[in-house]
Amino acid sequence: MELGMVGLGRMGANMAERLLRGGHKVTGFDPNADARKALEGKGAASADSLQALVQALPAPRVVWLMVPAGAITDDTVNTLLSLLSPGDTVIDGGNSNYNDTLRRAALYREHKLNYVDCGTSGGVWGLAEGYSMMVGGDEAVVKRLQPIFETLAPAKDAGWGRVGPVGSGHFTKMVHNGIEYGMMQAYAEGFSILEHKQEFGLDLAQIGEIWREGSVVRSWLLDLTTDALTKNPKMEGIAPYVADSGEGRWTVDEAIKLNVPAPVITLSLIARLRSRDTESFTDKLLASMRNEFGGHAIKKE
Amino acid sequence: MELGMVGLGRMGANMAERLLRGGHKVTGFDPNADARKALEGKGAASADSLQALVQALPAPRVVWLMVPAGAITDDTVNTLLSLLSPGDTVIDGGNSNYNDTLRRAALYREHKLNYVDCGTSGGVWGLAEGYSMMVGGDEAVVKRLQPIFETLAPAKDAGWGRVGPVGSGHFTKMVHNGIEYGMMQAYAEGFSILEHKQEFGLDLAQIGEIWREGSVVRSWLLDLTTDALTKNPKMEGIAPYVADSGEGRWTVDEAIKLNVPAPVITLSLIARLRSRDTESFTDKLLASMRNEFGGHAIKKE
Amino acid sequence: MELGMVGLGRMGANMAERLLRGGHKVTGFDPNADARKALEGKGAASADSLQALVQALPAPRVVWLMVPAGAITDDTVNTLLSLLSPGDTVIDGGNSNYNDTLRRAALYREHKLNYVDCGTSGGVWGLAEGYSMMVGGDEAVVKRLQPIFETLAPAKDAGWGRVGPVGSGHFTKMVHNGIEYGMMQAYAEGFSILEHKQEFGLDLAQIGEIWREGSVVRSWLLDLTTDALTKNPKMEGIAPYVADSGEGRWTVDEAIKLNVPAPVITLSLIARLRSRDTESFTDKLLASMRNEFGGHAIKKE
Amino acid sequence: MELGMVGLGRMGANMAERLLRGGHKVTGFDPNADARKALEGKGAASADSLQALVQALPAPRVVWLMVPAGAITDDTVNTLLSLLSPGDTVIDGGNSNYNDTLRRAALYREHKLNYVDCGTSGGVWGLAEGYSMMVGGDEAVVKRLQPIFETLAPAKDAGWGRVGPVGSGHFTKMVHNGIEYGMMQAYAEGFSILEHKQEFGLDLAQIGEIWREGSVVRSWLLDLTTDALTKNPKMEGIAPYVADSGEGRWTVDEAIKLNVPAPVITLSLIARLRSRDTESFTDKLLASMRNEFGGHAIKKE
Repeated sequence: MELGMVGLGRMGANMAERLLRGGHKVTGFDPNADARKALEGKGAASADSLQALVQALPAPRVVWLMVPAGAITDDTVNTLLSLLSPGDTVIDGGNSNYNDTLRRAALYREHKLNYVDCGTSGGVWGLAEGYSMMVGGDEAVVKRLQPIFETLAPAKDAGWGRVGPVGSGHFTKMVHNGIEYGMMQAYAEGFSILEHKQEFGLDLAQIGEIWREGSVVRSWLLDLTTDALTKNPKMEGIAPYVADSGEGRWTVDEAIKLNVPAPVITLSLIARLRSRDTESFTDKLLASMRNEFGGHAIKKE
Repeated sequence: MELGMVGLGRMGANMAERLLRGGHKVTGFDPNADARKALEGKGAASADSLQALVQALPAPRVVWLMVPAGAITDDTVNTLLSLLSPGDTVIDGGNSNYNDTLRRAALYREHKLNYVDCGTSGGVWGLAEGYSMMVGGDEAVVKRLQPIFETLAPAKDAGWGRVGPVGSGHFTKMVHNGIEYGMMQAYAEGFSILEHKQEFGLDLAQIGEIWREGSVVRSWLLDLTTDALTKNPKMEGIAPYVADSGEGRWTVDEAIKLNVPAPVITLSLIARLRSRDTESFTDKLLASMRNEFGGHAIKKE
Repeated sequence: MELGMVGLGRMGANMAERLLRGGHKVTGFDPNADARKALEGKGAASADSLQALVQALPAPRVVWLMVPAGAITDDTVNTLLSLLSPGDTVIDGGNSNYNDTLRRAALYREHKLNYVDCGTSGGVWGLAEGYSMMVGGDEAVVKRLQPIFETLAPAKDAGWGRVGPVGSGHFTKMVHNGIEYGMMQAYAEGFSILEHKQEFGLDLAQIGEIWREGSVVRSWLLDLTTDALTKNPKMEGIAPYVADSGEGRWTVDEAIKLNVPAPVITLSLIARLRSRDTESFTDKLLASMRNEFGGHAIKKE
Repeated sequence: MELGMVGLGRMGANMAERLLRGGHKVTGFDPNADARKALEGKGAASADSLQALVQALPAPRVVWLMVPAGAITDDTVNTLLSLLSPGDTVIDGGNSNYNDTLRRAALYREHKLNYVDCGTSGGVWGLAEGYSMMVGGDEAVVKRLQPIFETLAPAKDAGWGRVGPVGSGHFTKMVHNGIEYGMMQAYAEGFSILEHKQEFGLDLAQIGEIWREGSVVRSWLLDLTTDALTKNPKMEGIAPYVADSGEGRWTVDEAIKLNVPAPVITLSLIARLRSRDTESFTDKLLASMRNEFGGHAIKKE
């Protein structure tokens, strides 16, 4: 098939490359000229504006967005709205909040444009191993895009699927990331317990390797964790600072709205917040309270 | 009544003083001569060894222990065992683990000595306001000690009671402290949320004052918290480091043994552990894992 | 002063009564005629529509809303907007989300109407003991309303205050309720641990009584909890079902938005969700997973 | 090699069978005659008592224990102590608490017997896929046993290893299970959120299938979870009741002792406790407290 790829950062460029390798025709756009040039070097065409991109594509057009969620996606979606023609399709492959997706899709529907959301997992490994994709959108539209998904996926008929109407792709990806937070935290806590049991002198990377085969906790995340522990067993030079990129928060918010108790996913998010709260007012106040009622000494800063 | 007070630190000295004010005759022992002298200044006798203390007391003797839980309590209890005579009574007023209490009481019973456990709450305010006391022990023995408890308590017949057999006093005090952890954490989190809502420019001490009258969250801990916030609204110079002294851990352990889900008490303890884990291996590994699968940047130390 | 009271449910009727007792002139409105009649019996005037209420009040008018948060508040606020005149004031004393309050206040400002938010705590006890009130709004406007707050409060100058601009009153009340959730859960977990320690045969109401005097955990909530335990020590006939009314959710949401780790307040909310999730899909799936990997038996429904 | 297998339940019988397939000579003992007969059918010898088992094995003997942790392991270990000769080796392949293992190993050392602990993961799938084994013990002893581990493992040099001195194998397995609890809970919560989002009509088994390829959350547990969801999408007939078998508790206990904050592993355990607490005293008391202060209705049982 032929499609436009908007956003040639790490994810977008890799996906464009995997599509090219799969025989698709890709025209890429990114405000960064170097990113465009790099993609040209892989066999793609490029456009230096959204307008040029739309003109370069045959109708009915297919435009894949791989841009940061939020304002940039909104800008891009709105600009494309004025450039595209009825029957054209935009696929948002980024980590958009599904509520934003529902809003954008409703707008597109008014203009007889198709809107598809694709929750994309796989990170930097997707180029080589394929991406796991949860797709939301009208059945007929998704069916037409099938060759694209089949190429991006790990295998033609594995690792991707239409999970429901528009919005459901990003919703499912959001929950995927919530689970990811919980799994990551479980592994990290476990390895930390092992690390603190100093009298056993455990080799964490060795234990990770053992678990990779035959154990109940074997997983791809464990493979990566073991790799990280092998390269840097003591996590030297790494700040205990864990970012979060939105999906965890949205999952917690959604769980509460749906009245689903999700203590582990929630605590995984809170643990990340805590990692960045190095001057915790809460803890200072607690220390102060202990002093008030019990005369317990306060540690000075 | 007449009794010996072993341990003249902040808590023991205050309790001895409150007993003296109440007309009891107190002989104090502490390895620290200054502490003994200070108590003498309040009208007590003193002894410079446990042996001298026991000799100074009329039979049947009553010895109140107010020493650190653990090894020091064990040493004291064991030494007294060899010095006391059948019918004498030891009251452990400290924060002992109730399992230790059960073990010590069994030993004393073999020697026809009475063992009473008294969970004591009130902190540095107890001297003026009286202590809340949860007493475990044989009914007849506790009944004989009643004048002591009535004097130490906030009022003759309020703030203390025999809650059950030996061990139950420390058990109840342990749970009291577990609740205390949860309440403290709830307040601290709440005030921290207020503190972070900068656009409202809230005055935390003022809000504490408002809540002290008529609100659902009014409490003695709130009084103290408000006092702390009044004196140091920004918690300046205070390290975000919160100690714990055992009862929280025991409560969590006991809850699990009893199959009682206690998420809030448990998380209160974990929050304290976290306050001291400033180089969290867990968080370093999480940052490292994010880098592995997503290429996300790691913050350097 | 003279004011209109909209909403004569339990809270509104009690507040109107306390105002009447304090010498204020109150005109009440409620769609329920019995509620209006009941208030008349206490010495208030009444109106059978918002329009009649507004007409009955002297300019500049003061209207206190004590209606359910959400749609009913929106309807009332919107209707009043069309009836009131510049300089009039609406006070929302209910449990509105502060974001709604900010939106409504902006609308009122456009029409030169004053909007004040008053977070009100005290529940059914407020009539007798006074209400704790956290007020948000313009300083001059709040100053003019001072006699009302002084009457409703537990004492003239205690238990209430202007905490900041409009919105800050409901924000502060929201956090108050978050703290309340955490405290309640801490007490409930603690008493549950005591209850499960059957070998000590503890009397929970007795322990609550002991703690009420001199202990670190003494509080008004403990007074009420002890009362509940005295009346029904085994909680017979009570379903393990805990409702929540919004503020807990909003507090959790706000904590996450502000990047404040609030594990205890959050888990208190989740515990309530869990109390209502009697057919937990999560737990069924967990049981099923255990069977899958370990062959562990599944309990049948 | 030649070894005795004590305990021919699901795990022990499967391990014996895998050893037989690998060319080892196995003599099995179990109090249950049918279990012995079944193993004989696979080519093993059998003994009808521990004494007979020990007599049937050539010195230096190797005895693998696959019996329930706790009292039965203690009994077996103690009986073998009196039957074995210096230089013989016992391997505890069950889920013993590592503190028990340390105690038993010290006893064996006094008698010049070798004690090795092997944390074994893999469940019912181990027969076909091999077991992941974390081994603790003296280096020379473990080296001698290498052919056994190589056969039981998924591959000769993968999925097993000596992780440290005696005790460290069970310690590592304990943490493995703690991680497992966290991962399971994360998946179960995530799927539960998907299940509750009814407007999207999601097919959970399909989503599990998608995630199995290329996603960040792919794992063996996900494979099994997807299988469970395929077979029973609505979890019909399954009670929301989740057992726990000890390792989770020990992990939580150990984390606290080591001052490692482990909120996710801990909450995973608490969630299981909660699943069995269908008449929660905590929740009844909370409902009662809400009624006390706010007059909120109590749901009747």
